[in-house]
Amino acid sequence: MSAELIAVGTEILLGQITNTNGAFLANQLAELGIDSLNQQVVGDNQARLDAAITLAEQRAEIIILIGGLGPTPDDLSKQTLAAHLGVALVDDAPALAKLQAYAAQQQQPMTPNNLLQAKYPAGATVLMNKVGLAVGAVSVSQGKQYILLPGPPKEFEPMVLDQLVPYLLKTLGHDATMVSRVLRFFGIGESKVTTVLADLIAGQTNPTLATYIKPYEVTLRLTAKAADEAAAKALLDPMEAEIQSRLGQYFYGYGDDNSLPQAVVKALAEKQKQVTAAESLTAGAFQATLADVPGVSEWFKGGFVTYSNHTKAAFLGLDEATINRDGAVSEATAKAMATGALAKAEADLAVSFTGVAGPGPNDGQPAGTVWIGLAQRGQEAQAQLFHFPGSRAAVRGRAVKAGLFWLLKTLQAE
Amino acid sequence: MSAELIAVGTEILLGQITNTNGAFLANQLAELGIDSLNQQVVGDNQARLDAAITLAEQRAEIIILIGGLGPTPDDLSKQTLAAHLGVALVDDAPALAKLQAYAAQQQQPMTPNNLLQAKYPAGATVLMNKVGLAVGAVSVSQGKQYILLPGPPKEFEPMVLDQLVPYLLKTLGHDATMVSRVLRFFGIGESKVTTVLADLIAGQTNPTLATYIKPYEVTLRLTAKAADEAAAKALLDPMEAEIQSRLGQYFYGYGDDNSLPQAVVKALAEKQKQVTAAESLTAGAFQATLADVPGVSEWFKGGFVTYSNHTKAAFLGLDEATINRDGAVSEATAKAMATGALAKAEADLAVSFTGVAGPGPNDGQPAGTVWIGLAQRGQEAQAQLFHFPGSRAAVRGRAVKAGLFWLLKTLQAE
Repeated sequence: MSAELIAVGTEILLGQITNTNGAFLANQLAELGIDSLNQQVVGDNQARLDAAITLAEQRAEIIILIGGLGPTPDDLSKQTLAAHLGVALVDDAPALAKLQAYAAQQQQPMTPNNLLQAKYPAGATVLMNKVGLAVGAVSVSQGKQYILLPGPPKEFEPMVLDQLVPYLLKTLGHDATMVSRVLRFFGIGESKVTTVLADLIAGQTNPTLATYIKPYEVTLRLTAKAADEAAAKALLDPMEAEIQSRLGQYFYGYGDDNSLPQAVVKALAEKQKQVTAAESLTAGAFQATLADVPGVSEWFKGGFVTYSNHTKAAFLGLDEATINRDGAVSEATAKAMATGALAKAEADLAVSFTGVAGPGPNDGQPAGTVWIGLAQRGQEAQAQLFHFPGSRAAVRGRAVKAGLFWLLKTLQAE
Repeated sequence: MSAELIAVGTEILLGQITNTNGAFLANQLAELGIDSLNQQVVGDNQARLDAAITLAEQRAEIIILIGGLGPTPDDLSKQTLAAHLGVALVDDAPALAKLQAYAAQQQQPMTPNNLLQAKYPAGATVLMNKVGLAVGAVSVSQGKQYILLPGPPKEFEPMVLDQLVPYLLKTLGHDATMVSRVLRFFGIGESKVTTVLADLIAGQTNPTLATYIKPYEVTLRLTAKAADEAAAKALLDPMEAEIQSRLGQYFYGYGDDNSLPQAVVKALAEKQKQVTAAESLTAGAFQATLADVPGVSEWFKGGFVTYSNHTKAAFLGLDEATINRDGAVSEATAKAMATGALAKAEADLAVSFTGVAGPGPNDGQPAGTVWIGLAQRGQEAQAQLFHFPGSRAAVRGRAVKAGLFWLLKTLQAE
């Protein structure tokens, strides 16, 4: 089963807006196991839109028009599709009532263009628009499905998630339930993940396996189709166990709506631990990332940005001569920074960062050289050396996540 | 003259990345007066890519392939186009030398795939890649132009601006020069900008005017066509003067390759001033953003993240009872934080942030309530109250930029 997306809008062709809907829907289709081999963008022009539909019919079973459902004269998708299929446009009563109520509230008269928003190609299944006024629709003709969706992402995304996906699941004959489980990994690249899991990926049927690259992370989505949730879980569990046996050391949590800072704050709360930081290389990015998580203030009270040797000494109580002797980017300094921050902030754990962000080398050490320190109350501080590839931003971004990952593993090991 | 853009990449079809290049290039083409009536997206598949080229040839004179020039086996654009045109791939000597130098530095062996990055279709004009390794190219065949561009936006955008646009201008027989000037604004929304400039936007011919939304910023691009640079400048100058007379208070700098932290670091260097910060709300994000700029270490030595009242007192020398009395989110606390940080870090200027990031209210103040403080050596500290809309991330992001903007204006006023 294959779908072709047609984004409709001269403003996309002119570069006035970016087509974000394409990626959003393509992702949903991929999860449904629907191939998408071509996409098109076409302007608000009836002849060219009709040609785009004709072309898509030759390549796909599901033809999806995105945009061109609004009230302005250049919104032509609905009319063009109806003409293409040789059907009339008819009113959707609930949408028409909503439109009339809206017009009354706005004290605006209804134009014919406005009224078009409540119409759909005769015989189609209406897709309700919870956010806006223009209804979507699915028409079936000669074995092909033709789908109309609104262009504004605020209307488009909920219609896809709440209405189109369930509709497709049903019509695709999945009376099955589809259950996904997302595993999140840090410290391993996508190519290594696919190598380690090559046999599972090659042999996948049910559950299916897909890897996704996030910034400096990899996620793995297992999706099982089964009669019910319990049966799906029974398919997912052994697959996950096999994956964990190979990649467990890099695993840090489940779910699309998860992240390293969220996992860390959850672990801090579970262990009732306070954390602080002393950041040179990352200059506050570790603490700012941690504070992205609502509720963090219970477990993080503050910390230090110590960019120079002098502030490392002044803020953290280190000896500046010792830093100068050991080098700012060194194991000894990373440990001393963590130890100093722990004491000054009266915390249970402290993470420190010192390194060379680049672009060039510094102090004889190449860009990407990073020492991360970790101190725990009542224990000797530790430090780890990393060599991160990439730009200045990448080196700092990777360092922040490496610090979060180490902190998480330390909390989990307690 | 009409162009067709073909974005190449299975990751776009799968929705793993959003096709932002399409909008960027379409906009440039529109400014050149080149029509763009269709766009395509196709995966990393030689047969389908070839079919896409054939289709585009029937509709456009300029066929532009974006992406698929990299070193992995699924990068096929160059090979597919060369085969389509019936020409060989040949080495670009400077690109090959750059590639070999890079491989030597990375101590990585060169694979045949790697070497492909330095090749172009025989007879083509090479488009140099200043940022990455894969060259672009323009081939001319039977009256049509075939253009290869890299996919990563960091490589794609400069190649379009610095090489493709001048090339197209020349081959289009515009003996005109096109000169753009980008003005950057903070503290005003795009809709307000377009309202204030409505008459200029409606009446635009030469120069043209276009607004772009960046995160919490607006940029305005003026583009003039003229016989030479001086004539273009003579068209741009009065238009800019008119715009500055209306929006000058929000203006902070010129150019695509500019940003508030860059402008701040430049101003710190010009005035030879040291800056520090005390961050509650933003938890290090202001300092981390400043430290995105290479060379910042000369003007920023360190600062504080003081998330709790206790750390505000302990790190900055404030009196905890006074904070508790005034409230953490208050004018008095913002001023005291800036004054305390200034003294502790021995800096010339200090910026402080305290506020309610949300999602919910805090201490009886709604999410988005933000006090920013600014202290200068030898002067009384000041504070400004803001009410920022949006999510937790938006409130903190806007606060960081507002702090940078205030700091910049303060430095410029010296």
